[in-house]
Amino acid sequence: MSANSFGRVFTVTSFGESHGNAMGVVLDGVPPGITLHALDIQKELDRRRPGQSKITTQRKESDKVEILSGVFQNITTGSPIALLVRNSDIRSQDYESFKHLYRPGHADYTYEKKYGIRDWRGGGRASGRETVARVAAGAVAKKILLIEKITITGFSIEIAGIKAEKMDYTNIEKNDVRTPDTEKAELMVRAIDKARQSGDSVGGAVQAVVRGCPPGLGDPVFDKLDALLSHALMSIGGVKGIEFGCGFSCTKMRGSMYNDPFYKDGERIRTRTNNCGGILGGISTGEDIIMRVAIRPPASILVSQDTVDSKGQESKIEVKGRHDPCIVPRVVPVIEAMVAITILDCLLFQKMYKGEE
Amino acid sequence: MSANSFGRVFTVTSFGESHGNAMGVVLDGVPPGITLHALDIQKELDRRRPGQSKITTQRKESDKVEILSGVFQNITTGSPIALLVRNSDIRSQDYESFKHLYRPGHADYTYEKKYGIRDWRGGGRASGRETVARVAAGAVAKKILLIEKITITGFSIEIAGIKAEKMDYTNIEKNDVRTPDTEKAELMVRAIDKARQSGDSVGGAVQAVVRGCPPGLGDPVFDKLDALLSHALMSIGGVKGIEFGCGFSCTKMRGSMYNDPFYKDGERIRTRTNNCGGILGGISTGEDIIMRVAIRPPASILVSQDTVDSKGQESKIEVKGRHDPCIVPRVVPVIEAMVAITILDCLLFQKMYKGEE
Amino acid sequence: MSANSFGRVFTVTSFGESHGNAMGVVLDGVPPGITLHALDIQKELDRRRPGQSKITTQRKESDKVEILSGVFQNITTGSPIALLVRNSDIRSQDYESFKHLYRPGHADYTYEKKYGIRDWRGGGRASGRETVARVAAGAVAKKILLIEKITITGFSIEIAGIKAEKMDYTNIEKNDVRTPDTEKAELMVRAIDKARQSGDSVGGAVQAVVRGCPPGLGDPVFDKLDALLSHALMSIGGVKGIEFGCGFSCTKMRGSMYNDPFYKDGERIRTRTNNCGGILGGISTGEDIIMRVAIRPPASILVSQDTVDSKGQESKIEVKGRHDPCIVPRVVPVIEAMVAITILDCLLFQKMYKGEE
Amino acid sequence: MSANSFGRVFTVTSFGESHGNAMGVVLDGVPPGITLHALDIQKELDRRRPGQSKITTQRKESDKVEILSGVFQNITTGSPIALLVRNSDIRSQDYESFKHLYRPGHADYTYEKKYGIRDWRGGGRASGRETVARVAAGAVAKKILLIEKITITGFSIEIAGIKAEKMDYTNIEKNDVRTPDTEKAELMVRAIDKARQSGDSVGGAVQAVVRGCPPGLGDPVFDKLDALLSHALMSIGGVKGIEFGCGFSCTKMRGSMYNDPFYKDGERIRTRTNNCGGILGGISTGEDIIMRVAIRPPASILVSQDTVDSKGQESKIEVKGRHDPCIVPRVVPVIEAMVAITILDCLLFQKMYKGEE
Repeated sequence: MSANSFGRVFTVTSFGESHGNAMGVVLDGVPPGITLHALDIQKELDRRRPGQSKITTQRKESDKVEILSGVFQNITTGSPIALLVRNSDIRSQDYESFKHLYRPGHADYTYEKKYGIRDWRGGGRASGRETVARVAAGAVAKKILLIEKITITGFSIEIAGIKAEKMDYTNIEKNDVRTPDTEKAELMVRAIDKARQSGDSVGGAVQAVVRGCPPGLGDPVFDKLDALLSHALMSIGGVKGIEFGCGFSCTKMRGSMYNDPFYKDGERIRTRTNNCGGILGGISTGEDIIMRVAIRPPASILVSQDTVDSKGQESKIEVKGRHDPCIVPRVVPVIEAMVAITILDCLLFQKMYKGEE
Repeated sequence: MSANSFGRVFTVTSFGESHGNAMGVVLDGVPPGITLHALDIQKELDRRRPGQSKITTQRKESDKVEILSGVFQNITTGSPIALLVRNSDIRSQDYESFKHLYRPGHADYTYEKKYGIRDWRGGGRASGRETVARVAAGAVAKKILLIEKITITGFSIEIAGIKAEKMDYTNIEKNDVRTPDTEKAELMVRAIDKARQSGDSVGGAVQAVVRGCPPGLGDPVFDKLDALLSHALMSIGGVKGIEFGCGFSCTKMRGSMYNDPFYKDGERIRTRTNNCGGILGGISTGEDIIMRVAIRPPASILVSQDTVDSKGQESKIEVKGRHDPCIVPRVVPVIEAMVAITILDCLLFQKMYKGEE
Repeated sequence: MSANSFGRVFTVTSFGESHGNAMGVVLDGVPPGITLHALDIQKELDRRRPGQSKITTQRKESDKVEILSGVFQNITTGSPIALLVRNSDIRSQDYESFKHLYRPGHADYTYEKKYGIRDWRGGGRASGRETVARVAAGAVAKKILLIEKITITGFSIEIAGIKAEKMDYTNIEKNDVRTPDTEKAELMVRAIDKARQSGDSVGGAVQAVVRGCPPGLGDPVFDKLDALLSHALMSIGGVKGIEFGCGFSCTKMRGSMYNDPFYKDGERIRTRTNNCGGILGGISTGEDIIMRVAIRPPASILVSQDTVDSKGQESKIEVKGRHDPCIVPRVVPVIEAMVAITILDCLLFQKMYKGEE
Repeated sequence: MSANSFGRVFTVTSFGESHGNAMGVVLDGVPPGITLHALDIQKELDRRRPGQSKITTQRKESDKVEILSGVFQNITTGSPIALLVRNSDIRSQDYESFKHLYRPGHADYTYEKKYGIRDWRGGGRASGRETVARVAAGAVAKKILLIEKITITGFSIEIAGIKAEKMDYTNIEKNDVRTPDTEKAELMVRAIDKARQSGDSVGGAVQAVVRGCPPGLGDPVFDKLDALLSHALMSIGGVKGIEFGCGFSCTKMRGSMYNDPFYKDGERIRTRTNNCGGILGGISTGEDIIMRVAIRPPASILVSQDTVDSKGQESKIEVKGRHDPCIVPRVVPVIEAMVAITILDCLLFQKMYKGEE
């Protein structure tokens, strides 16, 4: 029931504020007997880390993870795994000047209405820094899924209106924007940089693909696989839309075009097309699970904006600080993490109930 | 943890199969002291009921609801409210001929992989008939929300590629497709009818608007209001995409254009635009909450399709039975119901934690 | 999160009031492929049914169960199973005369403080009749456990100060008080009858034993097997104490006497004694799980008592109606049911996480 | 659903092993705006700390708590509060010699059957050291309850067969065994010391009293207040029995003696006696909530015992290490903590649903 926890049987509990002592996460329901090193987690955190290139925030965080519990001699024991990442490069004074102002597009106003109090340092709990916890948890989930040969790949499919077209996954980690289309990568970087120079920000879209997922995952009726994934993805700051398979374009299709016909591929039953995105009736078909999420332009911009302060006075604001002009590339590992957490939860859940085959 | 339950403190537990004895739902966490009549529920069920017009399935179901518990002298007592709707117009023989065939676009194959067994009568648990439970539960939620002056309005915003433009909400319930644009309504009906005549089906999109929602609802970080709503909406059969506010179009926007500036409106703090759809940082702003969902064309079509049977033999199938050539109009009350359930859950949750104002 | 639900992955949601339309229960997480007939449930309901002998309430209820969903051709499908039992022999007028009086020992006062409203007919939701739902759910759990050769046996070990000594389980269902000691059964019946004649009631204790439970069930740290069982048992009306193994007598023991030494029994590791009651560190050892619960004398007595009415006036009350002078014999199947539900929940949970052996 | 979490809306997630890096806990659902200092938590940890007297283990742990998150300028923000306590005085080598032996009365065997792997250092996750997390969480709960004038007092009511008789609560913290009876305290200490000298251990019982609890807390039917408390208390290692009010002695009482008559005390409705222990129908009456728990003698004794090793060979074992010959005095703050957590959870839950008064 904790709003800071996610997952039904593989549960992830996140804590920490942007300028507090530390970010952290507790994982419960981790199967015992899995080999796990801090390095498995570190390499995913490094993908999310700020300061990776000129188009990301210049905040410097080493983001070193410490495994506090649940692992004995590099093997999971079935006990909860707590992971800790200390905050270090904190400049709360950057935020002091507008601590009474509600930054447009940010959660300042809504947090204050909700809680009657607000940790204004660096966005507090509402900061994107919270995703450190998600990426750390996702790294553990990915490790376990890999044993079952399930992999998750995320990438930028669109930034500032520029769409990736060539889908060569081997390119994804080779450019600063994490897109499979090397040519477009350059255009995307340029567009981000241009926005940054004018103190502005840009949006985009991420695609994620789950490969190797067995059929049968997801639980009707409310915990359908796509419903759980939507919950997971929409809980990431900046996500404003989600679609599966051919998504919103289905609104214009006919059933005869949309339905994916079944066929026999050796021993396996497959579908010839995958318009449904690998999920039928909320349960995985065994085909790739394909989803796309829309990412809004970051709220922190240097441009002057109208706002109101906590006393109700109208005012102007220019948001100083160190910010990303586009979070799409850095949100890719976060999206992968949330997908991994959800798939693992469903995989474990299914172990309880599956019928004989 | 039940996959057939939804809600954290206002919980809805659904049961029943399309051709089983009954559909039903148990509501827990209903505040005591609320006036509730069977008629409050019946009028919403009547909006969802099949056979309302020539463009819906011809299955005849009176869908009479019985309140089994939780209400004493027409007042809620705080005890769980169980609602029952008997199934009557069942023709399971329509399904017997293809009980071994996996209907494309349906959950036949995935249910069988998941459970090793499948109730093939009328789609069993995977049938759209399950939404009877949701609409009944949503009717109770709406009644409670109305006390707080919170209302939810859903409508067809697009069917078969035809988009509503005039947004006159008073028209919604006056046409067969539940759209606010009377002129477009006629075109939509024609498009559906045309598809029906060729044994095919069409998709569309529904928009839902929550008015009167106070600021402060929704719970960071995983149970953000939009995350919970996405979970709720994506759990409805046929939904393949969700977006809030300006949604997927944010991918092409700059922050300076996207951010909604704050201003003072009398005593109230408001935003001049509502690109974010009434939710910032996962918490309601007090503006209208606006969301759109993509609805795929129904899977049941008379056109011959390729498929495989449960023995693994390739085959052809033509899906007989009584089906909707477009579910968009009938899904409108279902969407309203799921939104109402989610908003009520957040409203009750917030009562525990809200800070002093 | 529903307070009317129990179980983590095998979840039971109960509804209904004593003099409402019906009692019922929804079971989720039932494994698919299990043979289940209404008769499996009916035979357990018949054990709980009122009017079985002169020492129980004379309310006449046939308690016929209807399976509303989740079973297809007598096989569970993995979908939620809803079970319904209509109320029939209702005499609400018996309660009308003291509807404004708080009956001592009953929940009238506390319900009114909690909810501000109260269904006074036959105790409403607080009635022992609610256990119909538990027994029906427990019957399904028992059926599934039996496949794994796990059985649960409950019996009266003490009534009105008279203790059973001979432990011949084959006698339990042969006497009106459900005790394994035939001689003591007669004394117990006499003691109950004597109390009944003076308009009074008596208490007692029930013992429950789980046989065939594999080692490894129960989940540290908060969901220890004994913690979950205690939750389950203490939620039964009238239960005021719980102990496992040698229970409260451990307070006077030394560790050297209390510890159960391990030994080898063929391939199996066992303990020579079972002071811990089959649970170590919250996890089953594989030995019999043994627990005892204290049952208070029923609150409904004909003797005149001091009380207060809902307006705050002091008054006298004599509780008319049809009541049990001792609920110990009828609570036995309820206790078995709650134990079965808990053990099944842990058994399913363990399927997700167990290490290789 | 996490087995390492407790609470429905005030949730506590515990992690850490006895000889791992740290113990910790994450609290969610903490109301915002509460003043909270590390010292509030430290003083409760100091009550639980080892090495307080000659009758406790000589392990030296400073148990300094660090607040990692959720508190800003010494005020709670509504975000999750993570608390960390580093382990320091670790002598894992003490355990190395019997790492393959199953210690009688310990969870070694059952953990191995459950998980297939076991952290044998100091009992790992099954160690009493886990209660550091509970006491830290309980300290926060107590602080919040105090605002509502709700207090919880625990004490040793029996040790090694010696019962406290004089109930002067002001004495509790003045003696090494935390009993309100100063004279008996001396006898208890002597009995513990005698057992210690012979390498043995003794059991006892703790009583806990909640004062100032308003009527209306606890949620029928499965989440009755006494059911939740039983879950909470039985989840503490070493607890083998629980009773409320007059507890097991109710088995010998008649209803006319057991029922607590209502009367008027000024504006308040009260009961003349409190046999039910302050709970009727699972809901608090407003009287003191009174419970007693049985504590087994600690499993770690120096006496030679029969056991089996992980290869299945029978063997002898003498458990070396630093152990408590009686955990009753140190378990008192743990019991208070679990009671506080449960009461706060119910208090917050009730805010959502309470009827008008």
